[in-house]
Amino acid sequence: MNKSFLPDVISTSTWIWYPGDYDIWLGNQVQNRRTERGTFLPPFWKMDSHYVLVEFSKKLDLPEEETIHIKVEGRYNVKLDGKLLSGSPEIVVIPEGKHLLNIKVHNQSGVPAIFVYGKTIQSDNSWKVTFEDKEWIDESGKASDTSSGTVYMNAASWNFNAAETLPSEFKLTTQPMSAVSSEKKNNGMLYDFGKETFGFAKFNGLKGKGTLDIYYGESPEEALSIGHCETLDRLPVDYSTAKDYTVAWSKAFRYIYVEKENTLTYDSLSMLYEYLPLDYKGSFRCNDEQINKIWDVAAYTLHLTTREFFIDGIKRDRWMWSGDAYQSFLMNYYLFNDSPSVERTLFSLRGKDPVTSHINTIMDYTFYWFLGIYDYYLFTGNETFIRQNYGRMQSLMNYVLGRRNKDGLLQGLPGDWVFIDWATGLSKKGEVSFEQLLFARSLETMALCASIANDAEGASAYKSLSEDMRKKLFEIYWNEQKQALVHSRVEGKQTENVTRYANMFSIFFDYFNESQKDAVKSSVLLKDNIQKITTPYMRFYELEALCALGEQSYVLNEMKDYWGGMLKLGATSFWEEYNPTKSGAEHYAMYGREFGKSLCHAWGASPLYLLGKYYLGVKPTAPGYAAYLVEPNLGGLQWMQGKVPTPDGNIELYVSKSEVKVRGVAGEGTLRLKSRTLPSGSNVRAIDKGNELYEITLKPGTEYIINYKAE
Amino acid sequence: MNKSFLPDVISTSTWIWYPGDYDIWLGNQVQNRRTERGTFLPPFWKMDSHYVLVEFSKKLDLPEEETIHIKVEGRYNVKLDGKLLSGSPEIVVIPEGKHLLNIKVHNQSGVPAIFVYGKTIQSDNSWKVTFEDKEWIDESGKASDTSSGTVYMNAASWNFNAAETLPSEFKLTTQPMSAVSSEKKNNGMLYDFGKETFGFAKFNGLKGKGTLDIYYGESPEEALSIGHCETLDRLPVDYSTAKDYTVAWSKAFRYIYVEKENTLTYDSLSMLYEYLPLDYKGSFRCNDEQINKIWDVAAYTLHLTTREFFIDGIKRDRWMWSGDAYQSFLMNYYLFNDSPSVERTLFSLRGKDPVTSHINTIMDYTFYWFLGIYDYYLFTGNETFIRQNYGRMQSLMNYVLGRRNKDGLLQGLPGDWVFIDWATGLSKKGEVSFEQLLFARSLETMALCASIANDAEGASAYKSLSEDMRKKLFEIYWNEQKQALVHSRVEGKQTENVTRYANMFSIFFDYFNESQKDAVKSSVLLKDNIQKITTPYMRFYELEALCALGEQSYVLNEMKDYWGGMLKLGATSFWEEYNPTKSGAEHYAMYGREFGKSLCHAWGASPLYLLGKYYLGVKPTAPGYAAYLVEPNLGGLQWMQGKVPTPDGNIELYVSKSEVKVRGVAGEGTLRLKSRTLPSGSNVRAIDKGNELYEITLKPGTEYIINYKAE
Repeated sequence: MNKSFLPDVISTSTWIWYPGDYDIWLGNQVQNRRTERGTFLPPFWKMDSHYVLVEFSKKLDLPEEETIHIKVEGRYNVKLDGKLLSGSPEIVVIPEGKHLLNIKVHNQSGVPAIFVYGKTIQSDNSWKVTFEDKEWIDESGKASDTSSGTVYMNAASWNFNAAETLPSEFKLTTQPMSAVSSEKKNNGMLYDFGKETFGFAKFNGLKGKGTLDIYYGESPEEALSIGHCETLDRLPVDYSTAKDYTVAWSKAFRYIYVEKENTLTYDSLSMLYEYLPLDYKGSFRCNDEQINKIWDVAAYTLHLTTREFFIDGIKRDRWMWSGDAYQSFLMNYYLFNDSPSVERTLFSLRGKDPVTSHINTIMDYTFYWFLGIYDYYLFTGNETFIRQNYGRMQSLMNYVLGRRNKDGLLQGLPGDWVFIDWATGLSKKGEVSFEQLLFARSLETMALCASIANDAEGASAYKSLSEDMRKKLFEIYWNEQKQALVHSRVEGKQTENVTRYANMFSIFFDYFNESQKDAVKSSVLLKDNIQKITTPYMRFYELEALCALGEQSYVLNEMKDYWGGMLKLGATSFWEEYNPTKSGAEHYAMYGREFGKSLCHAWGASPLYLLGKYYLGVKPTAPGYAAYLVEPNLGGLQWMQGKVPTPDGNIELYVSKSEVKVRGVAGEGTLRLKSRTLPSGSNVRAIDKGNELYEITLKPGTEYIINYKAE
Repeated sequence: MNKSFLPDVISTSTWIWYPGDYDIWLGNQVQNRRTERGTFLPPFWKMDSHYVLVEFSKKLDLPEEETIHIKVEGRYNVKLDGKLLSGSPEIVVIPEGKHLLNIKVHNQSGVPAIFVYGKTIQSDNSWKVTFEDKEWIDESGKASDTSSGTVYMNAASWNFNAAETLPSEFKLTTQPMSAVSSEKKNNGMLYDFGKETFGFAKFNGLKGKGTLDIYYGESPEEALSIGHCETLDRLPVDYSTAKDYTVAWSKAFRYIYVEKENTLTYDSLSMLYEYLPLDYKGSFRCNDEQINKIWDVAAYTLHLTTREFFIDGIKRDRWMWSGDAYQSFLMNYYLFNDSPSVERTLFSLRGKDPVTSHINTIMDYTFYWFLGIYDYYLFTGNETFIRQNYGRMQSLMNYVLGRRNKDGLLQGLPGDWVFIDWATGLSKKGEVSFEQLLFARSLETMALCASIANDAEGASAYKSLSEDMRKKLFEIYWNEQKQALVHSRVEGKQTENVTRYANMFSIFFDYFNESQKDAVKSSVLLKDNIQKITTPYMRFYELEALCALGEQSYVLNEMKDYWGGMLKLGATSFWEEYNPTKSGAEHYAMYGREFGKSLCHAWGASPLYLLGKYYLGVKPTAPGYAAYLVEPNLGGLQWMQGKVPTPDGNIELYVSKSEVKVRGVAGEGTLRLKSRTLPSGSNVRAIDKGNELYEITLKPGTEYIINYKAE
């Protein structure tokens, strides 16, 4: 990179590309890295590609002549005011006045991307981009175009903010880490890195000729099980002088067991920890040290699984699963609040048209994708992404609408995986209420986003479809006698089966009226003979529903039991599944394999979300925290304090039974408190909402210290 | 490549891939090679990509254990009977009995492709392939799958018939050629290669340090016009010892003009001629040497433009244009009869879903793509390709159907280029009759292919749509007073304008009844005040229409005038456009550029087709020449002889005014002769069809010598 490329002014230029393309390209790389005991194991759904030929354009109005520098990933040409410039210029001088600048790029193996840098001209998402410019030259030499039919998008970017930071060369950050202990075991050495981690094994001072066998384990049992550990490397070595050797592909592990031929020697085994550098913006502390520990381990679990994308677990799939990612998004809003990670994951999960299958082939996962967009908008307020993505939302929803049966309901058709949850004997037959519920919520998302994308006709059509589906949900599945939504309808008849899924979602979706909520709490949620949930995945929603009903004390005990239970077993990250009735290495089995279970699974980290949203009680009530609610609930704790990130900074909160300290951010904050007495403090004006409930308006940037009486 | 990979038995294995993927990938490469005076000039329409993750499978039933060898382009795994084999095995032993073999491949930069080789197991197009296998493992470890919803296709291939012949490394063949003369001109040397050609300039014994400027020309004027020639290379050289240097990218030229800095020397300039090796199966000879020369130059023109694909012209675009390619297909059936070239071009032109524009952005070009498939089936009888392609035919037709106006007609919408022809002042307003005509024919193609793809419902729907469109064509555009189809309807009213386009196509599409044909011949085709056609592109159809009306003598003179006119100007290949009223270098200008015109354009080669189909008079009447007609017409010649290739070999023919010799091939041949006397000969049974017309059945492989009396 020529130094002259970077003049001495502050740049806001960033590498830009067609929306979704970089995400899809990177997603293909990441998701095709999975191996199972050394064998390549790719996804089983369609993987799309970036557009190989893309045109970027920008309308300019320059007060004076300006020199721009152009850096491109791909082969390219440059047009100024419709005229092709010679060659592929890296420096272009643009005269003052109004101009149109076009850069057209071809790249098959990577994503067409540009970085443009001048005093005022800088590549960013104000640039337009298309995959078909439709500009042509007629037989008279006139530059004609049919581009009136072309759809231009705002370009997309991430954080490649320097010309020499090529998007195609992106790698996660690494950091050297040492093993905390090692011991001879069987025919080799077992290394313990002290906690679940992810990275590249590194042999220091490796020498000799022979094979190095590396067995990775999330448990010592797994690492030592050379016949059944899930990941391994067998490396041929031939070094006549000692060298440091780093294994090419990163793995998840806490333990590494190494066997080697005697002709090989090395000084030590260390690792390069590989991670996405993100700030822990959110925080939580309270008087209960076990809860604090749960929060810490949940945060670490989420960080390990927040990588190029939000993946499911770090050992095994390392894929994006829409249902798993949906939970990561929600936890992310209470920890990193990193929107680009959400956008990357949503774009990559969706892929491109045509839609030939549900996302991940799973019907429910298609709906979680829509729900993720709903939440994204609520938590970030970013309309650009919604508009970039709206076309793909429409075509996916068209796919779903085209699969309705004669009653307008969805049931599993050939090619559909109706997942819901890993639960023994769970029926997927007929029309499952849970799927219709997610469908209704997805249609609401479509109506919302149609408005943002200025599709008034769509907004009204989706609104009417969603209302219709909500009506049907109750007409078809509500059972007055059982006081619950039943699990399914088979051949036109309600089944007798009641499960938790549709019932708990209807609570926090606010689909039930108050009397239905009360009824369902006792007839389903707190009832023992309704099939129990054993995955942290569905525990997420179950506990959310209970919190939404004000059962924070009950949920706190559940958390301590369930997540505390994993901690007692030595967990340093939370698991894919936890069944307290099992013991020892039984805990590690799943999918019919001894060590099939992932011991670091994103969906295990839900206390992050629950503690932020339902204990600290902070949540946006208008897009991007333009309005928000702070409704703390100690749930039996003596005190708690924490931070909740918003696009405009952190909301900071301390809560005891007699005092609340809170500092708001931009936007209209409302603190809602239950109190025996009128809350008071400097600048505090509590409005009595009746029934010992008070509301206090929070102005941006002001700290409020409020005295009240919780009990 | 390990020798052991190729056991000593005859292999019918070939590299296979997902249908269309290789064609799209190669098409992207080829079409992004265009430069204009050194500047990259890519297409202006959407370019698609191959599927990056593809699964190949084959059901086996082995009489004995068999060892197979596997070679893959991409990263892969192998499953036998649903069980993943360890690593990426290159050799697999399969026990006797029934088995299912799956190979799954990921490749981003190239096309996922496999070559499998065993005694009986060989990769070919009987293998199934999909881009979403939807096979997954449930929580109990059971291999479940939702692949009931998966569409499996037969794999596609070309001619990569050896393990070491990697599809990704495909290159056209090259052959060294020398310049026929050279002379000092201006500040450099002008080389003449004797005829229009295509290839890589090669400097022999190049030495020194400095810049070599290479200007290519299809004419000496172009090569010498360093400011306006269409293609050039400016090469920095730094060789301290003499080396042979071949320019990296091939160009079209007859002349090369070289200027160099004095510090540079070289011994000579030669070239590597670059071409697709194809047999000239068809032939034509007659008593008129000018016609013979026209045929030869047409054949060479078609060969130069038949490359990785059928491209338009070799100097400039080097793109696939559907309307141009359509004519190449037809000529190809009378020269090379190379089906893979047709398939590659059709697949690449079409690209992938979703359809966002007409093919090449041109409405008529979408229709030529359908017509090309119609002809492909007629000339080759190949149903596999039709089935591989049918889904893409459907979605393209859906795109078209979605663009009809309230009267069910097509007119240019934003983004549509209504081309028809390069013709001064040609109106594209309103609903043009020519487009509706091509639309009707395309719907007929859909009906035909729907039947082949076992889509009975589609077949019936498309049939009814096509009949409706044909009816509308006459209701709306036929003008009883003018005895012709008018050019267009604007705002609901017939225009006064009559053009040749719809009228001439209706003749050889057989849309007119006999009295309409006669009327149109005099009211349009042979009438001087109807706008004349100046492109060889539309001359193709004009002359075809006249031939279909029996005007071979008239057309022969037109050929001699028009194509003979180019020969008289020294053409060694036929041009993009020819206007006899111009003179000198005026002939080379087009698109507002001095040398913009292509002097080797596929659409200039139509005599190949006309002479084969309407003079030798050979054409299939059932798919793949299962039945065919030989209806010779000397059109004023004394004698002619030639060969017409069919899937089963050549039909050979000699015709004078008193004798016909013909040798048929597989299929039911009919010789149809006009004769004053009853045609006779050994084995000849002429059936009198009245009006001096006789028909003689031709049995496969038999030579018939027939005496008759033409005049």
